[in-house]
Amino acid sequence: MSDLISLGKAAKKAAYTMALLQDDEKREALIKAADGILAGADRIISANDKDMEAARAKGTSPAMLDRLVLNEKKIGEMAHGMKEVAELPDPNGQLMETIERPNGLIIEKRRVPVGVIAIIYESRPNVTADAFALTFRSGNACILRGGSDAINSNSAITDIIRESLKGVRPGTEDSVILVRDTSHESVTELIKMRQYLDLVIPRGGAGLIRNVVSNSTVPVIETGTGNCHVYVDKDADLEKAVPIIVNGKTQRMGVCNAVESLVIHRDIAEKALPLIYSALHEKDVELRGDDTVLSELNGKGGVNPASEEDYGTEYLGPVISVKTVSSLDEAIEHINRFTTHHSECIITENKASAESFLKRIDAACVYHNASTRFTDGFEFGFGAEIGISTQKIHARGPMGLNELMSYKYEIRGSGQIR
Amino acid sequence: MSDLISLGKAAKKAAYTMALLQDDEKREALIKAADGILAGADRIISANDKDMEAARAKGTSPAMLDRLVLNEKKIGEMAHGMKEVAELPDPNGQLMETIERPNGLIIEKRRVPVGVIAIIYESRPNVTADAFALTFRSGNACILRGGSDAINSNSAITDIIRESLKGVRPGTEDSVILVRDTSHESVTELIKMRQYLDLVIPRGGAGLIRNVVSNSTVPVIETGTGNCHVYVDKDADLEKAVPIIVNGKTQRMGVCNAVESLVIHRDIAEKALPLIYSALHEKDVELRGDDTVLSELNGKGGVNPASEEDYGTEYLGPVISVKTVSSLDEAIEHINRFTTHHSECIITENKASAESFLKRIDAACVYHNASTRFTDGFEFGFGAEIGISTQKIHARGPMGLNELMSYKYEIRGSGQIR
Repeated sequence: MSDLISLGKAAKKAAYTMALLQDDEKREALIKAADGILAGADRIISANDKDMEAARAKGTSPAMLDRLVLNEKKIGEMAHGMKEVAELPDPNGQLMETIERPNGLIIEKRRVPVGVIAIIYESRPNVTADAFALTFRSGNACILRGGSDAINSNSAITDIIRESLKGVRPGTEDSVILVRDTSHESVTELIKMRQYLDLVIPRGGAGLIRNVVSNSTVPVIETGTGNCHVYVDKDADLEKAVPIIVNGKTQRMGVCNAVESLVIHRDIAEKALPLIYSALHEKDVELRGDDTVLSELNGKGGVNPASEEDYGTEYLGPVISVKTVSSLDEAIEHINRFTTHHSECIITENKASAESFLKRIDAACVYHNASTRFTDGFEFGFGAEIGISTQKIHARGPMGLNELMSYKYEIRGSGQIR
Repeated sequence: MSDLISLGKAAKKAAYTMALLQDDEKREALIKAADGILAGADRIISANDKDMEAARAKGTSPAMLDRLVLNEKKIGEMAHGMKEVAELPDPNGQLMETIERPNGLIIEKRRVPVGVIAIIYESRPNVTADAFALTFRSGNACILRGGSDAINSNSAITDIIRESLKGVRPGTEDSVILVRDTSHESVTELIKMRQYLDLVIPRGGAGLIRNVVSNSTVPVIETGTGNCHVYVDKDADLEKAVPIIVNGKTQRMGVCNAVESLVIHRDIAEKALPLIYSALHEKDVELRGDDTVLSELNGKGGVNPASEEDYGTEYLGPVISVKTVSSLDEAIEHINRFTTHHSECIITENKASAESFLKRIDAACVYHNASTRFTDGFEFGFGAEIGISTQKIHARGPMGLNELMSYKYEIRGSGQIR
């Protein structure tokens, strides 16, 4: 029996224990785990030092080092986040629907945890605490497979959490299990463990997600890729359009809900393009546009021709593609062709155009006159977020506690037969 | 470009058209398609004759021939089923939740179709009409891949439906596409067409389902395997237990919600076993039991020892395994070990034991004092059923129209930025 299978078995067993924990037990255990993280800050930092040293030795970029590093402040935020999740309402057992049948059967549809959730992620070690908090609060067990860069930090965090869970019911500590084998093979084996896992959530770059989606036999929720568009309609109010575009593109460049592409109606292009250009150019954003864009912004710096590939690129940096169209229909067709089904926005004062866009665009979140940056569990008021689903099965858009739940039907009878 | 890819493209396009159809348009189109089926009965029967001839020529069993054959009566039922689905309420656009944010954003969570659903099934040609009706009513496009045995029947049914859809909006006929290539390779290619498919639902035997689950890169809903248990608690009312067991086992043997295994508390075994034995033996059901069962029913006909494998077997025929236990906990542990997460039942007059069972058993449908045969979309009042999900992601238990839906967030603002 491989190590991973024994981990899977332990997690499955823990999932059955978890399903029995009361609201209070989970809340208190989570607060205790957060206090454990605070008390163990030195231990976490010294483990993190080892990761940082190894990362520096292999010439890791400053941006990646910044994601990897843990300090008192980050650890404090981690513990604070866990305590916030602890205070969220427990979705376990929530009554979703009652069906009373003519034969007297009472059918109750109630939320239950999914069971064992594997989360596969890359360098940021704070995901370890986040993912644990969300899965634990919702009554699930989790198997965490972090990246090799953060293995010492992830181990220290998981060890501390597991120690703090020993006071709860026996076996509860197995509700969080870290896969310490960070070889590529451990991912490959994990995502085929259908017998022990109910769900896999990959969090990370496109390569990781593609690998998991292509090879998993366990159900997967695909997260995170966002080639988000803003469509500036002919009836757009440019005083709304420009700030929404600038906010969407530049407030935080490296995130999935950042704007990557503009679509502009030709009737407003002459008026809109210079304003949009100035605002973005000031923030050092390069525009890659079609012929209309190039001729409207003739000779200006930071404007280049867009290739077909540009329209499908999630830059996650200071570049934006710009396409002009001659109708709302053409805009919708273009966006539905290049969308990653994340977040798409129309700027218009025309209600009918807005409604048509919201209905016809095939994305998790469709916006009228607001920034795509709001696609976020906290901004939606979920109080937490484990990722943003870009698929249509199970959960779509920001995933909070409810999205980590399944349901069951409890049917009460008095001897009914068919 | 392979044929399948062009089918996928056409279906994807149709899905966008479908999402625009109004409630009335869908209802009327479906009624028209049902009328087309009735009017085309001769054409369907003559196509079916070809399938029957080929099946007889290769020595197909009478039971399989019975599943394959279509006659006036079956065609009438098919059309009637389509009309019933036509009259179900349209889930499209249904408001599930409204979130008003302090910044003035109004976030509406609304049901939308999943998109393109592939359904892979075996010999029964009426699945073609059923699957079309359910996916169409819910605003989805479907790609149907039936078995080679029924290819002529499936083609005739699909052709008639597609002809009847030509009066609706252009392209609507591509909301139902039959894969006429019935090679094994066509399944293999289909379930990797992630770009065009949003969901795959396999309907058929365990081999088909395993193949789809193991090889699909498109999200799958696993359906249909049911190793359903009835647990006779020490506090059971045997006047309820016996009819529920007999109904569950014998009312229809070959279905997924039939009972395959009994678990009996030892305190009641002496009283219960002879009664259960008589009732089942009368229906020619063989019991395979553990040592306690064998000694209680010492020397009676149709009683044999159970192997470990028996407890994991979905017989779909006149056999039932019987296990005795010394506690509710042992019963729950045994069932959670062998369950296929479909339907499980406790017979008891003890409310606390019932509640503990309902909470702790990991299955889509958990019953107290009622037959597992009620796990069915019609019995739940859904008015339709495309299958019974045994997984925890997206849909669990009977799947009606709502379970073929995803959702999207429509967010309306007035210029909000972060």
